[in-house]
Amino acid sequence: MPDKKGIFYGLGVGPGDPELLTLKAARILNSVDVVFAASSTKNSYSLAVSIARPHIFDLTAVRMLKFPMTRDKEMLQKAWKEHAITIIKEVEQGKNVAFLTLGDLMTYSTYGYVIKYIKELAPEVPIISVPGITSYQAAAAAVNRPLVEGEESLMVVSGAQGGGRLRDQAKSPDTVVLLKAYRNCKDIALALEENDLLDNSVAISRCSLPDQEIYNDVAELCERTPKYWTLIIAKKKPHD
Amino acid sequence: MPDKKGIFYGLGVGPGDPELLTLKAARILNSVDVVFAASSTKNSYSLAVSIARPHIFDLTAVRMLKFPMTRDKEMLQKAWKEHAITIIKEVEQGKNVAFLTLGDLMTYSTYGYVIKYIKELAPEVPIISVPGITSYQAAAAAVNRPLVEGEESLMVVSGAQGGGRLRDQAKSPDTVVLLKAYRNCKDIALALEENDLLDNSVAISRCSLPDQEIYNDVAELCERTPKYWTLIIAKKKPHD
Repeated sequence: MPDKKGIFYGLGVGPGDPELLTLKAARILNSVDVVFAASSTKNSYSLAVSIARPHIFDLTAVRMLKFPMTRDKEMLQKAWKEHAITIIKEVEQGKNVAFLTLGDLMTYSTYGYVIKYIKELAPEVPIISVPGITSYQAAAAAVNRPLVEGEESLMVVSGAQGGGRLRDQAKSPDTVVLLKAYRNCKDIALALEENDLLDNSVAISRCSLPDQEIYNDVAELCERTPKYWTLIIAKKKPHD
Repeated sequence: MPDKKGIFYGLGVGPGDPELLTLKAARILNSVDVVFAASSTKNSYSLAVSIARPHIFDLTAVRMLKFPMTRDKEMLQKAWKEHAITIIKEVEQGKNVAFLTLGDLMTYSTYGYVIKYIKELAPEVPIISVPGITSYQAAAAAVNRPLVEGEESLMVVSGAQGGGRLRDQAKSPDTVVLLKAYRNCKDIALALEENDLLDNSVAISRCSLPDQEIYNDVAELCERTPKYWTLIIAKKKPHD
């Protein structure tokens, strides 16, 4: 085993536009020996890799970490642990390794599981995490609307289960960002209305990607089933 | 007046590390004719400008928009309106103009006021907003701790008034980010304890700047008065 160990880098690559990578993430991508990203066992596609592609040298190894399409926590934990071991082996051979995640790596990302096992199994491995732009920041910029100002509060919740999280968690937030607002969108619209947030809301799908779409009538959008990558930004008071 | 009008760009330059700019912000900075940033009437210093400096050509005009150090809303509105007029004049002369903000431009930034008046006074001016990394994202990356995972919720509040916002706004958030947690820090620690969030919290001051500091004992930190740029990330359950 070589004397010199490598470094493990976690890189958030932003929501889709390759230009929304940070300079730091681009520089690190240019220098590492191996690039890892998660994909399903069904195929090898990774949007994170396709965003980062312009910054990865042709000869750099790009390796997919396959995850079973399941909600079974034990199966997933087992897969994460195995993948952490794969990463640790590379670092212990002196290689610098990057793990890519879409958006920001600390915001609803699988990165937390990767570093949990690396810390546990190989606490000597240096971990350097580089933040990335989130989908909701890019969405607010796309519609030129401030998320929060002054003494306002921002609540970010998952809409995967409908409006439930919003009802459970918030008393009366000034701004709510609902990620994954595709399934149960009708119930989300209802929860927004209950909190006086529906009228001043906007939905954005596939933000910063070439086929990005903006919907100003969220109530109407929620009558149908929006695309998988749809988020809603809802504000209590109009900005004036 | 020339036929061709310029473009107004809003650029979030991130929390402090010049490498946390996005590639897009760096490219635009390289191409604009004038760079604006806010500063107080007392001096011309702008951290946003010093972060962006490596990407601004020596011959590019850098202009400070001065704001009175006041909480008087009318005085501030008047200053913003005047500054918006200054910006519009440049754009109407065919110049491409950038306005810099620290962190992300839609998250607790004065950028909202700038675009409010530009939209109002010159709706034909094209506005392109480029998001930036927030201080709390950089802070979570610095301590290698996920902000939110799975079905968790994230609450971002200002700590400028102490723990009040946390008490008012949240029922039982999984993660709370308290920005400006310097004044009334003792009351913030109390509010965190009331919400079962104190034990698992971390404070970071001047995140991503050369003199960044991390405090793992928030209760102890709040016995004194932390630095101006201190934020707290508090999580309900340990990540395991």
